[in-house]
Amino acid sequence: MFNQLGLIGCGLMGGSFALALKKAGLVKRVIGYSKSPSTVEKARRMGVIDVAAESALLAVSGSDIVLIAVPVAASEGTFKAIRHLVDPGVLFMDVGSTKRDVVDAARRVLKERLPSFVPAHPIAGREVAGIEHADAALYQGRKLILTPLEQTDPVLVQKATDVWAAVGCQVLKMTPEHHDAAFAAVSHLPHLLAFAYMTAMGQQPGGQEYLSLAGPGFRDFSRIAASDPTIWRDILLSNREEVLKQSEAFRQALDTLEAQMRAWDGPELQRMIQTASDARSKWQLNPAPLNPASAGKPGAR
Amino acid sequence: MFNQLGLIGCGLMGGSFALALKKAGLVKRVIGYSKSPSTVEKARRMGVIDVAAESALLAVSGSDIVLIAVPVAASEGTFKAIRHLVDPGVLFMDVGSTKRDVVDAARRVLKERLPSFVPAHPIAGREVAGIEHADAALYQGRKLILTPLEQTDPVLVQKATDVWAAVGCQVLKMTPEHHDAAFAAVSHLPHLLAFAYMTAMGQQPGGQEYLSLAGPGFRDFSRIAASDPTIWRDILLSNREEVLKQSEAFRQALDTLEAQMRAWDGPELQRMIQTASDARSKWQLNPAPLNPASAGKPGAR
Repeated sequence: MFNQLGLIGCGLMGGSFALALKKAGLVKRVIGYSKSPSTVEKARRMGVIDVAAESALLAVSGSDIVLIAVPVAASEGTFKAIRHLVDPGVLFMDVGSTKRDVVDAARRVLKERLPSFVPAHPIAGREVAGIEHADAALYQGRKLILTPLEQTDPVLVQKATDVWAAVGCQVLKMTPEHHDAAFAAVSHLPHLLAFAYMTAMGQQPGGQEYLSLAGPGFRDFSRIAASDPTIWRDILLSNREEVLKQSEAFRQALDTLEAQMRAWDGPELQRMIQTASDARSKWQLNPAPLNPASAGKPGAR
Repeated sequence: MFNQLGLIGCGLMGGSFALALKKAGLVKRVIGYSKSPSTVEKARRMGVIDVAAESALLAVSGSDIVLIAVPVAASEGTFKAIRHLVDPGVLFMDVGSTKRDVVDAARRVLKERLPSFVPAHPIAGREVAGIEHADAALYQGRKLILTPLEQTDPVLVQKATDVWAAVGCQVLKMTPEHHDAAFAAVSHLPHLLAFAYMTAMGQQPGGQEYLSLAGPGFRDFSRIAASDPTIWRDILLSNREEVLKQSEAFRQALDTLEAQMRAWDGPELQRMIQTASDARSKWQLNPAPLNPASAGKPGAR
């Protein structure tokens, strides 16, 4: 049980974490800060936070758990704003979709206070952003990646593991480098492709009319193109090298498929589609919704 | 009300149409043919069809409505097999995802019997194929495109409109050319991209482990990659020119986004993502589930 959650960034991710902690009875009070005064006020009216803080530093003051839930490019500025109150024993986490850049920023800014920061990435989200979509169940049954560093306090890593497990996550640990390579492949590239696809649709004459004919296949394929532009600008830039590497592999596969189409090579085209189809058919979103009752309680070590 | 539906091809699309017609009380009996004897036997045991036919021609014999639900490349062969029983007044339809090639085959084979054929494409489907997934509700609330020709009997076009409306479809009419251009953009290209994406994932070292980390964004984006390889080989080949044209437009948009990433051009990158995100956010799958009670009854002209 935590006394106070300091929430920096009152959006979908942060708001959902606050609600989940409250619902699980794991926090007594939530103090929240957001760059936008109207957002923090909305979060307070919705009951996502109990108290509005006037700065990121004030949201940290007196908190024993702090969640930094801002676009990844804002991580460094946030670390700078709060570093004087990054105290040992207080659990600091982020929710960024990229980890190397956040970890680099933490190294640069936090220095000897680095052990208090446990980098985290919940594999959850929605194509809508903002506090008004915050949902206590957002993290239920999802994966949560921790990328602790050599210097990270193992007691805090365990605390982070416990609190995410308590809100329903399956917690995995890996290096920031491995995280960024993997998520370039399974998340960042799909977003880039979906943005490119919607861009091409929007730029062509007749595109609007074509869209009016689209069905369920289009709906699911393009859903992630509706994601938040600021957040995704940051992710694509901060994980640029890995995303471009994945895009190159994708282009090669697309070249091959198109060459088969141009050559009327039905058998080879079918073989490649079969392999792709089999790979996708056997994939499953890990359902494993952890039972909060059986998961370790935070602080219960 | 029809006396007998002749179903040629007992898969997801054909089976679902038979079940929908039965559920709506629009057909007395269904006679079905499939290239595979075990499939037609399964369809009979499931109650999707009442009688198994030993040939496509025998499925047409005595039927007053015929649905050809085979992969598009098998359309011409099917027309040849049944042409001697393509009689005026009997409604012949297909469900192919491409229309120009099907219409061309119908012209070549059916000749003076062409007026009986009403080309149709229901915008429905699932990433699983086969009679075992047939679902009476598959077409409920979906769009249905008819691409009648100058020669097509207008009485049969009206009958086709009525029967699809009666199973819950919103019926639209357009030329085969317009259909193929539009669906290259909103369906065929997304499938090609999803196949290429899964191919690239499968071919890279570490791809399997990356896939085990994937979340809901990946799930939706890649769902259509699990589609039936035979059906999609045919679609990509038969609508090749339009698909390649759409792919070229997509590649240009991808080039532009990647150039912005390489140039660290945050503002332009964000602007393009914003436009794509806005376009996708305002898109809606036409929900309008038509009420069968208020839609025109087949034959009630």
